[in-house]
Amino acid sequence: MAFFEYDNKKFFYQVDGQGEPLVFLNGIMMSTRSWDSFVPTLSEHNMFIRLDFLDQGQSSEGDKFYTQEYQCEVLRQLVLHLKLEKINIMGVSYGGEVAIIFAIKYPELVNRLMLFNTTAKTSNWLQDIGRGWNEIGATLNGEAYYNITIPVIYSPSFYVQNYDWMMNRKKMLVELFSNQVFQHKMKRLVDSSEQLDEIDNLNKIKAETLIVSSELDMLTPPVEQRLLASKISKSHYLFVPSYGHAFMYENPTLFTALVLGFVNRKDGKISI
Amino acid sequence: MAFFEYDNKKFFYQVDGQGEPLVFLNGIMMSTRSWDSFVPTLSEHNMFIRLDFLDQGQSSEGDKFYTQEYQCEVLRQLVLHLKLEKINIMGVSYGGEVAIIFAIKYPELVNRLMLFNTTAKTSNWLQDIGRGWNEIGATLNGEAYYNITIPVIYSPSFYVQNYDWMMNRKKMLVELFSNQVFQHKMKRLVDSSEQLDEIDNLNKIKAETLIVSSELDMLTPPVEQRLLASKISKSHYLFVPSYGHAFMYENPTLFTALVLGFVNRKDGKISI
Amino acid sequence: MAFFEYDNKKFFYQVDGQGEPLVFLNGIMMSTRSWDSFVPTLSEHNMFIRLDFLDQGQSSEGDKFYTQEYQCEVLRQLVLHLKLEKINIMGVSYGGEVAIIFAIKYPELVNRLMLFNTTAKTSNWLQDIGRGWNEIGATLNGEAYYNITIPVIYSPSFYVQNYDWMMNRKKMLVELFSNQVFQHKMKRLVDSSEQLDEIDNLNKIKAETLIVSSELDMLTPPVEQRLLASKISKSHYLFVPSYGHAFMYENPTLFTALVLGFVNRKDGKISI
Amino acid sequence: MAFFEYDNKKFFYQVDGQGEPLVFLNGIMMSTRSWDSFVPTLSEHNMFIRLDFLDQGQSSEGDKFYTQEYQCEVLRQLVLHLKLEKINIMGVSYGGEVAIIFAIKYPELVNRLMLFNTTAKTSNWLQDIGRGWNEIGATLNGEAYYNITIPVIYSPSFYVQNYDWMMNRKKMLVELFSNQVFQHKMKRLVDSSEQLDEIDNLNKIKAETLIVSSELDMLTPPVEQRLLASKISKSHYLFVPSYGHAFMYENPTLFTALVLGFVNRKDGKISI
Repeated sequence: MAFFEYDNKKFFYQVDGQGEPLVFLNGIMMSTRSWDSFVPTLSEHNMFIRLDFLDQGQSSEGDKFYTQEYQCEVLRQLVLHLKLEKINIMGVSYGGEVAIIFAIKYPELVNRLMLFNTTAKTSNWLQDIGRGWNEIGATLNGEAYYNITIPVIYSPSFYVQNYDWMMNRKKMLVELFSNQVFQHKMKRLVDSSEQLDEIDNLNKIKAETLIVSSELDMLTPPVEQRLLASKISKSHYLFVPSYGHAFMYENPTLFTALVLGFVNRKDGKISI
Repeated sequence: MAFFEYDNKKFFYQVDGQGEPLVFLNGIMMSTRSWDSFVPTLSEHNMFIRLDFLDQGQSSEGDKFYTQEYQCEVLRQLVLHLKLEKINIMGVSYGGEVAIIFAIKYPELVNRLMLFNTTAKTSNWLQDIGRGWNEIGATLNGEAYYNITIPVIYSPSFYVQNYDWMMNRKKMLVELFSNQVFQHKMKRLVDSSEQLDEIDNLNKIKAETLIVSSELDMLTPPVEQRLLASKISKSHYLFVPSYGHAFMYENPTLFTALVLGFVNRKDGKISI
Repeated sequence: MAFFEYDNKKFFYQVDGQGEPLVFLNGIMMSTRSWDSFVPTLSEHNMFIRLDFLDQGQSSEGDKFYTQEYQCEVLRQLVLHLKLEKINIMGVSYGGEVAIIFAIKYPELVNRLMLFNTTAKTSNWLQDIGRGWNEIGATLNGEAYYNITIPVIYSPSFYVQNYDWMMNRKKMLVELFSNQVFQHKMKRLVDSSEQLDEIDNLNKIKAETLIVSSELDMLTPPVEQRLLASKISKSHYLFVPSYGHAFMYENPTLFTALVLGFVNRKDGKISI
Repeated sequence: MAFFEYDNKKFFYQVDGQGEPLVFLNGIMMSTRSWDSFVPTLSEHNMFIRLDFLDQGQSSEGDKFYTQEYQCEVLRQLVLHLKLEKINIMGVSYGGEVAIIFAIKYPELVNRLMLFNTTAKTSNWLQDIGRGWNEIGATLNGEAYYNITIPVIYSPSFYVQNYDWMMNRKKMLVELFSNQVFQHKMKRLVDSSEQLDEIDNLNKIKAETLIVSSELDMLTPPVEQRLLASKISKSHYLFVPSYGHAFMYENPTLFTALVLGFVNRKDGKISI
């Protein structure tokens, strides 16, 4: 566990294991803690690196409006701090958006890129959904905020089959969602993604890229990732039937197999 | 324009045109008025019948908790009132749920059945989303209610391409959503669907049935209609790429073509 | 039943019923006879017009190499012969290809266009498959020709569930496929489609167009129709899960509902 | 390079690298040689084991009718010969069918199972296609055999984009396909799979199983793998858009990433 400093703020990161560096970029409501149980699997052969963005987990709070470009710079500082030459990045949702910006801006720092359930653009549609989240967040009605933000992240079948676990988790989440500090962080994070539009820059991504869609992703539906796949030159596209936006929670076995297979596969074109 | 009475309440319905009866059952936020511009197309060769359920449009308000069985009886009364022998039913979302109940309970009254973007069961997942709607509705924050309920009904691409129209419509909707009477109605309607579970009864549906999924339906995703298609014996299943839950608004040309083709096709098996 | 003359050859066509003209263009192995049992349904409200292309059914045999442009002219002659102002066209597979050429060349003659399981281009992939058909056809081994050309036209599940019917049909087909005259006709038909490439002209199609894919179409898979839908400006795209290339045989109820709904729907934009 | 003996025949296998054993089971027309260029990638961290089934590559020819149960026993003998406790199996198409039989019969020998573009049953549909192959094979017309069997294995887009490579490969294949010994082998292999029906035994598979469909698989379309996924208890299902039956040739990068990620992922459930 450690921090680095940037822009007069502290940023939390965690490194486990050794090997080819594998950086995980969190979804908007997540933090480094969200990956705790993934560590044994992901750090077995890799230097597994987690990061809390500004306004996430143990990192500093933002004090004014910022965009995802800021988070991109935070990641850049982490790379410098760890003295890494190149990293492999797995980004999911918000983290995937930052990963896209980073891969466009610092192509020389990215070895392989993995984008799960994410988008290159915050459309008016997604903006309005985000505004709704902010408006309910501001009321500090944690119960309503839970019902608006959590079910939609999971596939209906996973949610239903794990309903007891969901309801347990809900108790903790409702308390969190009623907390003003949390909601201020969430609002800034949501706002930071509102202007995202990197569609015309996707052709600048040079890294070999894995793009994964979940059939029942209600926030960044597969149409978004098909667009990514059509614009990123060295991309490989997979579609996972039956799962939702939080595929990595719904099927961590398959999720980690995809990540580890893609990142650790020895380079070298197979000629047939 | 006319009313009939049932259970000491008044129910609004409207009949246009003549021919094979075609009854439209509204989605939860809709009313007979929602179909106004569809009338010339749908009444050309058919007796096109619209109905406001309890708590919809010009029908009476509910005065206590009820379930969708009640709406099923309202439809039954309409059939009696109009002295119809058999009807063809198109139900979308909430209206499709009532249509399913009706086709199970009164199979002798149903000729052909058309189910668009609907489900046979309100799962815990859908229940929690509905509770979120109710919780925000209760605050009379029309802006938040709009952002929570409206974008999710449309495909992202339709919403984005018709954003000006959406924003115009938003003005009217935000006012409506801030109205206490409307929100009380909406809450009762949402609550009325909470216990729906007709999955084990779907095999009782004897009507020839058209089932349509929209790829980007975020409320009753295609997995729900695939289940309907697997359980209803004489069903025909279509999948419409690119559209959302409100497919009938997004592509009224295709929607009305599907309805009219299915309802007016002369009976008779084609042997090959 | 009637013939018209063109280019010193006779072409067979058949007209049933009255109303808005609906012309059906056959798949490569089909003829006007293939639609016999569809007539009552399709002629109820329409002038249902069938045509045997050159080398099909009761029309003349070709005497030299020709392309699908020739069949396009045959259709043009039929329109003149019947003194029709505008026609609606349903084309499946080979017939859809001719329909595309016709709608590009004679936009003023086309009211609505329906394209089922077809393509705008005979790729190297489809060419090689066609050459294989020709090579086996030349051996007059009807049994092999059946196994190579027929199963692939149907979805596996339809083929298996109707296996007795298939085996009955096989007897007749094996005899036909062993016939030298038939195989010469088939070879010319296959050859006539080899150069098809209208992709760059699809934007010239002005007719309102319905495009339908079947999930299990192994000859012109859905990727081909998605391309059509992306290039034809006024197109509506449907995807039918579970069926194969011969969708119209596998589910004639749904097929005729789609055709009749699309062709007979009263014009007029529905404004929402 | 080495052989083992069984049933008075010789079977060729090849072992490269060290680590967790990973056995590849060939598609029907393949041999150990088909994987030559995959060796550096697949043997980096694994004991990569290839096998020629009876009538494949350098293994003995069959001398009478046999079923895939026989090939299952060949695999069993290889495991005994190599003194392996448990193996991980990747089977594609024909090889996947044998893998399914093996995992049902010898569950104690299987650690993880990977099934690509395969089926648990040779339906009447697939039987008839196989019979067509045999009938054309018997004519020793290599050109026709190529056109019937090869394009259908690839996605149209891959085939078209690599047409020069295909045509080069065709020269070699046409010669091979005109060879009587090869065709006798192929006929026995095709016949060996004709009776396959393990659907009712799939619940006996205890291994953690990855199941992969390619969108444009024209021989064992995705509907077959969805059935596998619904019947194998510990299965994970992936869908790869745009590729065909020979996905492993069309995108070896993605194919090997999936295999290596799934087979080398450290065990251990991730609790969330």
